[in-house]
Amino acid sequence: MEELELMEGLQEELKEHTKQVMQLLKEKNFREIKAIINDMYTQDTAQLLEELPEKDMPPVFRLLSKENAADTFVEMSTDSQELLISVFTDAELKAVFDEMFLDDAVDVIEEMPANVVKRIINQADSKTRQQINQILNYPKDSAGTIMTVEYVSLRSHWTVRECFDRIRQVGSDKETIYSCYVTDTKRKLLGVVSVRDLLMHDYETEIATFMETDFLVAETTDDKESVAQLISKYDLFSLPVVDKENRMVGIITVDDILDVVEEETTEDIAKMAAVLPSDTPYLEQSTWQIWKNRIPWLLVLLISSTFTGIVINAYEATLSALLFACVPMIMGTGGNAGSQASSTITRSLAVGEVQPRDFLHVLWKELRASVLLGLVLAVACFGKLMLIDGLLLGYPYTWDIALIVSVALLLTIVLAKLVGCLMPILAKVCKLDPAVVASPFITTIVDVLSLIIYCQIATSLLPAI
Amino acid sequence: MEELELMEGLQEELKEHTKQVMQLLKEKNFREIKAIINDMYTQDTAQLLEELPEKDMPPVFRLLSKENAADTFVEMSTDSQELLISVFTDAELKAVFDEMFLDDAVDVIEEMPANVVKRIINQADSKTRQQINQILNYPKDSAGTIMTVEYVSLRSHWTVRECFDRIRQVGSDKETIYSCYVTDTKRKLLGVVSVRDLLMHDYETEIATFMETDFLVAETTDDKESVAQLISKYDLFSLPVVDKENRMVGIITVDDILDVVEEETTEDIAKMAAVLPSDTPYLEQSTWQIWKNRIPWLLVLLISSTFTGIVINAYEATLSALLFACVPMIMGTGGNAGSQASSTITRSLAVGEVQPRDFLHVLWKELRASVLLGLVLAVACFGKLMLIDGLLLGYPYTWDIALIVSVALLLTIVLAKLVGCLMPILAKVCKLDPAVVASPFITTIVDVLSLIIYCQIATSLLPAI
Repeated sequence: MEELELMEGLQEELKEHTKQVMQLLKEKNFREIKAIINDMYTQDTAQLLEELPEKDMPPVFRLLSKENAADTFVEMSTDSQELLISVFTDAELKAVFDEMFLDDAVDVIEEMPANVVKRIINQADSKTRQQINQILNYPKDSAGTIMTVEYVSLRSHWTVRECFDRIRQVGSDKETIYSCYVTDTKRKLLGVVSVRDLLMHDYETEIATFMETDFLVAETTDDKESVAQLISKYDLFSLPVVDKENRMVGIITVDDILDVVEEETTEDIAKMAAVLPSDTPYLEQSTWQIWKNRIPWLLVLLISSTFTGIVINAYEATLSALLFACVPMIMGTGGNAGSQASSTITRSLAVGEVQPRDFLHVLWKELRASVLLGLVLAVACFGKLMLIDGLLLGYPYTWDIALIVSVALLLTIVLAKLVGCLMPILAKVCKLDPAVVASPFITTIVDVLSLIIYCQIATSLLPAI
Repeated sequence: MEELELMEGLQEELKEHTKQVMQLLKEKNFREIKAIINDMYTQDTAQLLEELPEKDMPPVFRLLSKENAADTFVEMSTDSQELLISVFTDAELKAVFDEMFLDDAVDVIEEMPANVVKRIINQADSKTRQQINQILNYPKDSAGTIMTVEYVSLRSHWTVRECFDRIRQVGSDKETIYSCYVTDTKRKLLGVVSVRDLLMHDYETEIATFMETDFLVAETTDDKESVAQLISKYDLFSLPVVDKENRMVGIITVDDILDVVEEETTEDIAKMAAVLPSDTPYLEQSTWQIWKNRIPWLLVLLISSTFTGIVINAYEATLSALLFACVPMIMGTGGNAGSQASSTITRSLAVGEVQPRDFLHVLWKELRASVLLGLVLAVACFGKLMLIDGLLLGYPYTWDIALIVSVALLLTIVLAKLVGCLMPILAKVCKLDPAVVASPFITTIVDVLSLIIYCQIATSLLPAI
C-alpha cells in the first residue's frame, strides 16, 4: 500500500464539505445544505452524515431527495441506520425502503434487531414482503443472499427492436441491464443476451437466432465464494441464479463480487491471525465481540504450550544458561520460517494457483528452498553468536556451542518449512479451512518440534565434541 | 473457504475434456480435438493445454480458431507462453498478438525476456508498437499499466441514434462498450454516457443534453490500488484514465480491478508473513526466487533475537528452571495476542474501515478487550500450572510461582495488544506499509518486552511473597 493520492484528494474534498455543512447548520441555512448533499456521491454523503453530531444527522438526512435518501441509507453503518429508523415516521421508512433495490433492503434488514425488522417488513407490500422473506431464508453465505432479484427478462421470439423497447420500458428499475435473460413462460432460463449482442444485430433480427444458449449459472444455494471465483475466472459481468427447478430467480453482478472478495479475504486474514472472523467492521464491534473472537484461540494456544513446558523441563538438567538463552531465537526463527511457507501456500490455495495434487511439487520446492535458507541462516547464526554475542557482548559462547545452535537452527528451518507447506494442503484435502491451520496451529507444532530438535542435538552432540 | 461445489463441477468437466483430448491425440483425431477445444471457455482451454505433455501443446494450440487462440494465449502461464512463442512462426506470432487487446499484449510482453520482447514488437505495426512502448513506460503499479486503450469515444453533438451507429460500427473491437466517452477534437474528456443512458433517451436526442459531466477520472500515474479502492467504493463499472493534460488515454474496467485486488491482497498476506511479495504464482517461482523473497526478513529477525538473548542472560541467575519453562508460553501467547490486534487493524486500514485519526478509539477498544482477555487467560494459566503442570505432570509449581507467571501473562497481553494496534497506524501515518510492520516487527518487539516484564516481575515479586 503506497500513498493513495487519488483517494486522498477525494477524502480532502469530503472533509471540506463536512466542515461547510457543519457551519451551515449553525447558520440554519438548510437550503444550501440541501444543495450540497444532493450533489455528492451517495457514498460520500453517507460518510458526511456519520461525521455529524448524532442529533443533527436525521434532520440533514431528511434534506436528501427521495432517491438519494435510499442510496445514501444503504451506504451507512448499521448503527446509523438503526438511529435513523428509530426517528423515521412510518411513511418515511416506507419511502426509503421502496426506493431501495431488494437485495440492498435485505442486507439492511439482516443486521437489524427483531423489532426493527418487524417494523420494516410491515411497511412493505405483500409481494415485496414475500420476496424479502424468501431471500432471508437462503443459507448463510449462499448465492441467494447476494443476488438481486431485479433483472431484465426477454422472450426468445422477440426482435432486437422489441427487446430495446422492453429495456427502455423496465430498465430504469433494474440494477444492471447489460445482460438480459431469455426465459419461457415458466421462467425457465433459455439463453442470455447482452446489450452488446443486441447492438451488433439488426433491429429486425429475432434474438433466438443469436442468443447464447451455452451459459454458466449458479444455484441459489451455491456458496458465494465459489460464485466469486467463477465470475473472476471467466471475467463475467453478471451471472444468472436459478433455483432447483432451473427457474431464473436473480442475478449476481461483478460489483457484488468485489464486496464478497473483500469480505472473504478479511476472513482469511483473521483466521491466519488466530481470530474468529466477523462480518462487522472493526470500529463497530463491541469490546465483548472482540473478546469473543479472540479468546478461543488464545486459550487453545495457551493450553498447548504445556508441551513446550514439558520439553524444557525434561532437558532442564542438560542445558546450560547459554543454550537456554538461544531458545527464543530458535523458536522464533522456526515460527517465522513456518508461517512464511504456510501463508504462501494458503494464499495460493485460496486463489487456485496451487491444487492439493501439486503437493509433491510444493514439497520438493520447499525442501530445496529451506535447505538454502537454513544454510545461510546457520552461518549467520554462527557469526552472530561468535561475533555479536561473544566478542561484542562478552558472553562466553565457544565455537562448539555456536555450532550446535546453528545446526539445530538449520534442521528447525527445514522442518518448519515442510510442516508449514504440508499442513494447509492437508487441511484442504480433509475439507478443513487451510487459513485456520496456516498460522496458529503450525506455530505450536513448530515450537514443540524445534525445541525437541534443539535439546536433542544439544544433549547428544555436547559430550561428543 | 467451504466446499466449492460450483467450481468443482466445472473442474471435473475440464478433467474429463483433458482425458478425452489425450486419448484423441493418441488416435490422431485432430478434427475432434479441434471441435472440443474451440467450444470451451478460453480459461479452461488454457488449463487443458497446460496439462498436456510439452511436445503436444503447440500442435493442439494450432487447432484453435484465430480469436480463441489469442484469448487462450492470454490466459496461459508465462512459461507456456514462452514455449509457444519459441515454436511460433513470425506469421503465427503476429496473428496471435493482432487479435489481443493491447493491455493484454502488454501484460504478456512485460513478463518475457528481452529477445522475445524484441521479436513480438518487431511484428507489430508502427502505431501499435508506439502504444505498447508508451504503456511499458508508465510507472510500475500505475493506472497506465492496467488500463485498456480501446474504448468508444463519442462527440457531444451526436444524437442517440448516431451514437448507436457508432457503437455498432466500432464496438466489436472494444473491450467494454457500456460506458462511452464524449471527447472533443483534442481528445479532452467532456462527459460520460452509458449505454443505459442512451437506451433511456429518444433516438433523436443530442447526447450533450444528458451526458454526465461530473465524473471521476484517474490519471495514468495514479497508483492502481487507489484506482481499485475508488472503483470499489463508488461501485463503478469503468473509470476513464487521462494524461497530465486531461486528454483521454484509456479506461479501467471493474474486471481488471478484481485482478488488482487479488494481487494486492496476496502482497499484503505475504508481507504479514515476513515474505517479500512476488507477482509470480508460487508454482512458477524458482527455488532461488523463493529463497530471495524469504531470506531478508529471516535474517533481520535472527539478528534482532540478540535482544531476547540479552534479556535471558541478564536474568539467568534469578530465574529458576520452572520459571524458564514458562518463557515459551509467555512469549508465544504475547506474540499471538499482538498479531491478532495488528492483523485486524492492518486489514481494517487496508479496506478503509479504520483511519489513522481513529487511533484513540482503537486504543481504547484494545485496552478494554486486552484487559478482559488478559484476565481470563491469567486465570486459565494459573489453573493450567496448578492442575495440569502441577497435579497431573508433577512439576513442583507452587501458587506463588503460578501467580507470578499469570500476572506477567496479563501484562504481556495488554502490552502486546497495545503495541499490536498502534504500530500499523503509526506506520500508516509515517507513510510506511502497515502490512510489513503488522507481523514480523511486532513479534520481535513483543518478544523482548514480554521477556523483560516477565523477568522483572519474577525477580521483584519472588522475594516479596
